[in-house]
Amino acid sequence: MKTLEELQDLIHDAVGQLSYPEKPADLYKPITYIMSLGGKRLRPALLLMACDIFGGDVQQAVKAALAIEVFHNFTLMHDDIMDKAPLRRGKATVHELWDQNVAILSGDAMMVEANKLMLQVPDAVLRRIMNIFNETATGVCEGQQFDMSFETRSDVSAEEYIDMIRLKTAVLLGGALKIGAIIGGASETDASLLYTFGEQLGIAFQLQDDILDVYGDPDKFGKQVGGDIISNKKTFLLIKAQELAAGTDATELQQWIKATEFDAEAKVAAVTGIYNNLNIRTLASDAMATYAERAFAALDAINLPAENKQYLRMFADSLMVREY
Amino acid sequence: MKTLEELQDLIHDAVGQLSYPEKPADLYKPITYIMSLGGKRLRPALLLMACDIFGGDVQQAVKAALAIEVFHNFTLMHDDIMDKAPLRRGKATVHELWDQNVAILSGDAMMVEANKLMLQVPDAVLRRIMNIFNETATGVCEGQQFDMSFETRSDVSAEEYIDMIRLKTAVLLGGALKIGAIIGGASETDASLLYTFGEQLGIAFQLQDDILDVYGDPDKFGKQVGGDIISNKKTFLLIKAQELAAGTDATELQQWIKATEFDAEAKVAAVTGIYNNLNIRTLASDAMATYAERAFAALDAINLPAENKQYLRMFADSLMVREY
Repeated sequence: MKTLEELQDLIHDAVGQLSYPEKPADLYKPITYIMSLGGKRLRPALLLMACDIFGGDVQQAVKAALAIEVFHNFTLMHDDIMDKAPLRRGKATVHELWDQNVAILSGDAMMVEANKLMLQVPDAVLRRIMNIFNETATGVCEGQQFDMSFETRSDVSAEEYIDMIRLKTAVLLGGALKIGAIIGGASETDASLLYTFGEQLGIAFQLQDDILDVYGDPDKFGKQVGGDIISNKKTFLLIKAQELAAGTDATELQQWIKATEFDAEAKVAAVTGIYNNLNIRTLASDAMATYAERAFAALDAINLPAENKQYLRMFADSLMVREY
Repeated sequence: MKTLEELQDLIHDAVGQLSYPEKPADLYKPITYIMSLGGKRLRPALLLMACDIFGGDVQQAVKAALAIEVFHNFTLMHDDIMDKAPLRRGKATVHELWDQNVAILSGDAMMVEANKLMLQVPDAVLRRIMNIFNETATGVCEGQQFDMSFETRSDVSAEEYIDMIRLKTAVLLGGALKIGAIIGGASETDASLLYTFGEQLGIAFQLQDDILDVYGDPDKFGKQVGGDIISNKKTFLLIKAQELAAGTDATELQQWIKATEFDAEAKVAAVTGIYNNLNIRTLASDAMATYAERAFAALDAINLPAENKQYLRMFADSLMVREY
């Protein structure tokens, strides 16, 4: 079995070898640029791991893994336009460095490139894998649209939120793992269990991210603690708080949400106080634990020796123990 | 053999039966909207005709034909954002009716839907067809990028222009025909000849469109005659004129191009006069005839009885005899 780090290195090298035509430069240079910004390459590395644990040849899965990474970066390029984000991994976004039209069209071309890469899987699994890839892609688009529409809605339920994060981020992890498993020769049952593992783990991870944004140790959490509160981001915590708050808590929470001028620290302290009154941290941790447990249960049910699954388990453990 | 009109009707019905999930509404309603705006459905109808003439069952090719039409409309949705176009087929564009983010994301989802439709071709031809589809899609993206970059360049050659229109519009016609031919059981040689027919005919048609914009009969030409001249659109005619103009013609042409305030009729008359001095109409007609001849030569070379090719020939003839 190869470790996650070994597979990440393999993907890193493979990404470095991707090359595109010189012309038109404004179509292909942005692709090379966004692919060079780095990242942990977890999705493609996990695709390779899924192939590896079922006894497959990871070399046979490299193109599919690259397809997932190119697809992921295509969604980032278009999401950054929609979010008007100036930075991606600390560097200027494509629509800032070039312009918006370039980012739209390069993104479109990236999606075609992702399809070309994914098509290089063996004939015997081609149709199954393309179906999973397309279902995954549809899910990601749906998730992004739900996310955007939630910004202007005040009645988003916790269930809707969970389904949004499932689509927007978790299905791609699940899809990557399932594709790798199928290339590796897994049974349909095992491949589907691995999908569930990735999907449920992805939801748990996103919930943990919501918790860390409020309760994380500033020294260990990569982002500004309280950022979600300052921007009124509809996280699991805020949605639950809005659902449960009554009396003064409800009034104050609404006041902070509606405030246009405020002291950021004061807002973070006050909203965190309301969360504490409502026991939101425990509710969120419990929800997170539920999804993590489902992920581990799916992993346990896969018909493979524990040894084969050890690195996936280690990965999941490492995701779920970020201290806070 | 089915006529083009019969096949257009068949596609019209099939488009009407496409349905998408209800939610998220802002992802799927724009797809239904743009697909309902109509159009001649020539590309999908010609895909079916290509299948039909080789003895294939057109019903087996309907999903692939729909894939081409959905893909084409996806490119229109994104092109309209890039061109800031308020109208498409006389109705509000998606980015006007919803907003730009919706148009980006719905377009992305349409491309996934197009892939799902194309994947429904029989196993035996799946990989070949997906490869053609992806190459076509890449060509369309490249053509659009060249088109955008030409707007800010003053040194575009006639060859570059022809290659741009080939990529932007002709390869999709060629690709549609080739995919239909393969589903219909054509040999690789015949399928490639049909691709050439579509590609060269597409270039000829675009050149004719450039000519008609200046020399068309206002009563028969659908658009405002002289529109390209008024907007300084880099057509084959303008590029050739800039290449050939000398002395007063060159000076005057540049003055009209640079003018920010002008009488539209006067500009159209003056630039048309310069075109006439330089014999641009003949040059453009000759170029058009060259591509049309290549298209007909490819059609002639296809190993089928003339009877099978009669409707394709009629279609090509009808495209090339718009009076002016």
